[in-house]
Amino acid sequence: MNKGDGPYSYAQNSSYQRGVVDAAKEMIGEAIADKLDIKHLSFASLNAFCIADFGCSVGPNTFIAVQNILEPVEFKYQTQGLNSRIPEFQVFFNDHVTNDFNTLFTSLTPYKRYFAAGIPGSFYNRLFPKASLHFVHSSNSLHWLSKVPKEVLDINSPAWNKGRIHYVGSAKEVLEAYSAQYAKDMESFLYARAQEVVDGGLMALLIASLPDGILHSQTTTGMLYELLGSCLMDMAKTGVVSEAKVDSFNLPIYYTSTKELEAIIERNGYFNIERMEKMDQPMMQATPNLQMCTLHTRAVMEGLIKEHFGSEIIDELFNRYTEKVAESSFVLNLENRKVIELFVLLKRKMTN
Amino acid sequence: MNKGDGPYSYAQNSSYQRGVVDAAKEMIGEAIADKLDIKHLSFASLNAFCIADFGCSVGPNTFIAVQNILEPVEFKYQTQGLNSRIPEFQVFFNDHVTNDFNTLFTSLTPYKRYFAAGIPGSFYNRLFPKASLHFVHSSNSLHWLSKVPKEVLDINSPAWNKGRIHYVGSAKEVLEAYSAQYAKDMESFLYARAQEVVDGGLMALLIASLPDGILHSQTTTGMLYELLGSCLMDMAKTGVVSEAKVDSFNLPIYYTSTKELEAIIERNGYFNIERMEKMDQPMMQATPNLQMCTLHTRAVMEGLIKEHFGSEIIDELFNRYTEKVAESSFVLNLENRKVIELFVLLKRKMTN
Repeated sequence: MNKGDGPYSYAQNSSYQRGVVDAAKEMIGEAIADKLDIKHLSFASLNAFCIADFGCSVGPNTFIAVQNILEPVEFKYQTQGLNSRIPEFQVFFNDHVTNDFNTLFTSLTPYKRYFAAGIPGSFYNRLFPKASLHFVHSSNSLHWLSKVPKEVLDINSPAWNKGRIHYVGSAKEVLEAYSAQYAKDMESFLYARAQEVVDGGLMALLIASLPDGILHSQTTTGMLYELLGSCLMDMAKTGVVSEAKVDSFNLPIYYTSTKELEAIIERNGYFNIERMEKMDQPMMQATPNLQMCTLHTRAVMEGLIKEHFGSEIIDELFNRYTEKVAESSFVLNLENRKVIELFVLLKRKMTN
Repeated sequence: MNKGDGPYSYAQNSSYQRGVVDAAKEMIGEAIADKLDIKHLSFASLNAFCIADFGCSVGPNTFIAVQNILEPVEFKYQTQGLNSRIPEFQVFFNDHVTNDFNTLFTSLTPYKRYFAAGIPGSFYNRLFPKASLHFVHSSNSLHWLSKVPKEVLDINSPAWNKGRIHYVGSAKEVLEAYSAQYAKDMESFLYARAQEVVDGGLMALLIASLPDGILHSQTTTGMLYELLGSCLMDMAKTGVVSEAKVDSFNLPIYYTSTKELEAIIERNGYFNIERMEKMDQPMMQATPNLQMCTLHTRAVMEGLIKEHFGSEIIDELFNRYTEKVAESSFVLNLENRKVIELFVLLKRKMTN
């Protein structure tokens, strides 16, 4: 994600993600009201109720998400006559080591009702001590893989993804490699969280995914990746970048489906699925608009592209990209916005 | 503290602070061996042993300090036959919101044996939930006040500190205002930590201070502040900065004495003083060297000065300062290095 708060920054170009957080507010409220057992042993004698947001980026969405958890928890203690036992709150903001934690920290309001901490590191690894979290949140992060599947980069593999930057429009072996990497990563995520979340603790995961039976190539998002890849190939043809450099660049992003995700969670076995459904995301009903599409892609992808190609190509690339998006009747057609936001509520099973 | 790891950065110019951390290693080992009761209730059934370093800056000293705590704790569990109950470790790195946490986080080794967290905020406030810390460390930070005492900035107060940037060489009212601010700040620190540290938990505080009966003006450090202030006054005379601007600039730094600190801790009442003594800091025996004096001052003070005067004056100021330090036989005389490092080991009293 782009750092700071300039015109191309993630902080200024994450209104889509904000929509996801807003849409989840009510569902999180219901989750806490219905599924959080604050009279249970792990919660009854708490000094602190610990919340973690995995993949928090730089805000402000993460602060809103945290507030959407904290308030219903307090309310639950109050309505259950446990006013005097409302715990203190500790909130852990997690993202990659390279996330802009400096911006995140200076954006924290001094009037917050919780103790704040930053947790640097990949959420596919353990990041917390055993049984130390009570509520886990993650929004729009779990479609990021821990890495590009290695077969996709291997010239001798049938999954070698020549001339493309994603599995959209590629051979089925490419999609399979991505899918296998996703399954491995999600298993790592669930296993790590299973150690860290207390018995009965909740996880609300907001995950960009595909409706069952829809291919990524049939969606706006898929087409945007396709267009970005084709701009890079055009630039390879004019010699601005080498073709080999484009071949070795792939987006570490995968959109799962309800069925696939359900199978992974059940195979893992540490969590009960309490709720799993498509969210009503009002921004999904808005016709895609050129500026938003391009600024959003830039805020999210620029860092990744710079790291691989260097910063010289960025302006030309995004100029070309903006032109292609503007000409694409597919992208700007509302009907093709088929990526959904899945709301997944998991509850940590009891250890004994 | 200067950010990043460039030639004027704190990370590259904190070998003095490193000396303090090294000198404390043995004393911390002894503290854990002799005073940490791991069979006590708060420690016996721990999921995680939580360590916090207050005023951690950007490393690497803070990582070394943490290692110097973690290893003797593990060793104690092993030697007491509690091998199977060695807890996981969580380490909280605290400093101001404006600290360069990005640099701190990217400097963390992936091979560490603890879960790391950054805690932004002033340690004169509460930063953690109740009873959540087992070992507190703070090195070379508690001589920083929360703010410049307001009387020192008040033109109508007898403590108004015209023409100086510190209490060295000022009227006694200036020193008194600093001393009062220090007492207030230390009380805030101790009160906040008393809530956060478990019963029987330890605090190792490494504090730059003065031997009883020595005035700050009799020390190298005091003289360095005096010279820095006089450079600013010289620049006011040549019109580079206004005199009023210099009058309104004061260093929020105070060096306590053993007696004064002891009285504050006893008045607070939440901690037993287990040990309080001057540390053997080998670097204190080294003759001050021009480059180290000036680079160290710049790494520590530049941010503060920039904030007040703007960045334009920095190079001229530090050129003038280097010249004055070079000419000062007082500063470069080993005998005047009278500031000591105090090792203070406190143990949280039992609540009941």
